[in-house]
Amino acid sequence: MVYEIMKPEEIEKRSMEIITSELNGRTWPEPKFSIVKRCIHTSADFDYADNLVFSDGAEKIGVSVIRKGATIVTDTKMASAGINKAKVESYGGSVKCFISDEDVIAEAKSRNCTRATVSMEKAANIKGPLVIACGNAPTALIALYDLIKAGKIRPDLIIGVPVGFVNVVESKEMIMELDIPYIVAKGRKGGSNIAATICNAMIYYKD
Amino acid sequence: MVYEIMKPEEIEKRSMEIITSELNGRTWPEPKFSIVKRCIHTSADFDYADNLVFSDGAEKIGVSVIRKGATIVTDTKMASAGINKAKVESYGGSVKCFISDEDVIAEAKSRNCTRATVSMEKAANIKGPLVIACGNAPTALIALYDLIKAGKIRPDLIIGVPVGFVNVVESKEMIMELDIPYIVAKGRKGGSNIAATICNAMIYYKD
Repeated sequence: MVYEIMKPEEIEKRSMEIITSELNGRTWPEPKFSIVKRCIHTSADFDYADNLVFSDGAEKIGVSVIRKGATIVTDTKMASAGINKAKVESYGGSVKCFISDEDVIAEAKSRNCTRATVSMEKAANIKGPLVIACGNAPTALIALYDLIKAGKIRPDLIIGVPVGFVNVVESKEMIMELDIPYIVAKGRKGGSNIAATICNAMIYYKD
Repeated sequence: MVYEIMKPEEIEKRSMEIITSELNGRTWPEPKFSIVKRCIHTSADFDYADNLVFSDGAEKIGVSVIRKGATIVTDTKMASAGINKAKVESYGGSVKCFISDEDVIAEAKSRNCTRATVSMEKAANIKGPLVIACGNAPTALIALYDLIKAGKIRPDLIIGVPVGFVNVVESKEMIMELDIPYIVAKGRKGGSNIAATICNAMIYYKD
């Protein structure tokens, strides 16, 4: 079996060239293009060229607030594990996931609701610029929607890319009804890896 | 927007029913079917019904060694974050990822090789049943191949599902040449989420 010996940064560069080539001339203004390519890179799934939806300027707002030291809150540990924390911290920001916090687990149990819901409520206490990235739980997005409607939280950007077959499409449609910047993967697809990679695309973006 | 209020376990049950229905009669003997369904569940991508390849009995070997307290070593923190550690530990096993260990970082730097390579070498020191799950780096799979060929490591199961465009297909083909049980997603697709979900399918499997 023949394979090429390449450094990781060469592999990434070559991968992006292949993706660009297979997109067959389709292109987006930056930093949208970087986000689309990274979603394809992380999944090898070109559906992301069609299903990603950006509210007007959402991608630029994301880059801007991350550079201003935004807190990025994810719905799963897996998504937070995939985000380049050191880089976020270099901007003065942080990456948080509350889903396994003891207070969240206890409160979800006592109220008989999901941990995803309680963890979104916990995110509502964060001061300063805020990005919410949901790659797993539609319940987290639905809880977020309710909190926004109740005036309890107002993120600067919502990354709404839960994956699955039940309530997922609906939860994304709800987020797109709001007047808050969003990046959403329409339909069933998404995931913690997609949530993380969208964050990383904005974190790594260079003008 | 209308959505159904359901508990997480009900959502999972309903999701599996939808997946089974959309597989349109296609079925696999267990625990293979559980693995296929979970890969689709985690990605909303039915390609996994076609691209997953199991060496003879690999899925049963996986279930068996996990129950015997296997160590599961992943190539990324994201994959390890997605595996149900408490359940693995309840069998006497553990989930490990060496990629960010200080000794691994230092050695990769001094030898001018990838951290993925050094972390696979570190896994070679593990005693007892061993599952290696690679969802990201083809270099990890290639390093694993070389270590196996050199007689330095012999995992009980290899989950080879890196994703991407460079060396990914080749690294999977290399693993399938060996005489070690494997579960591989042929082609470009895979990911840390897929690596984790294959582990979880075997961890959760009930006879």
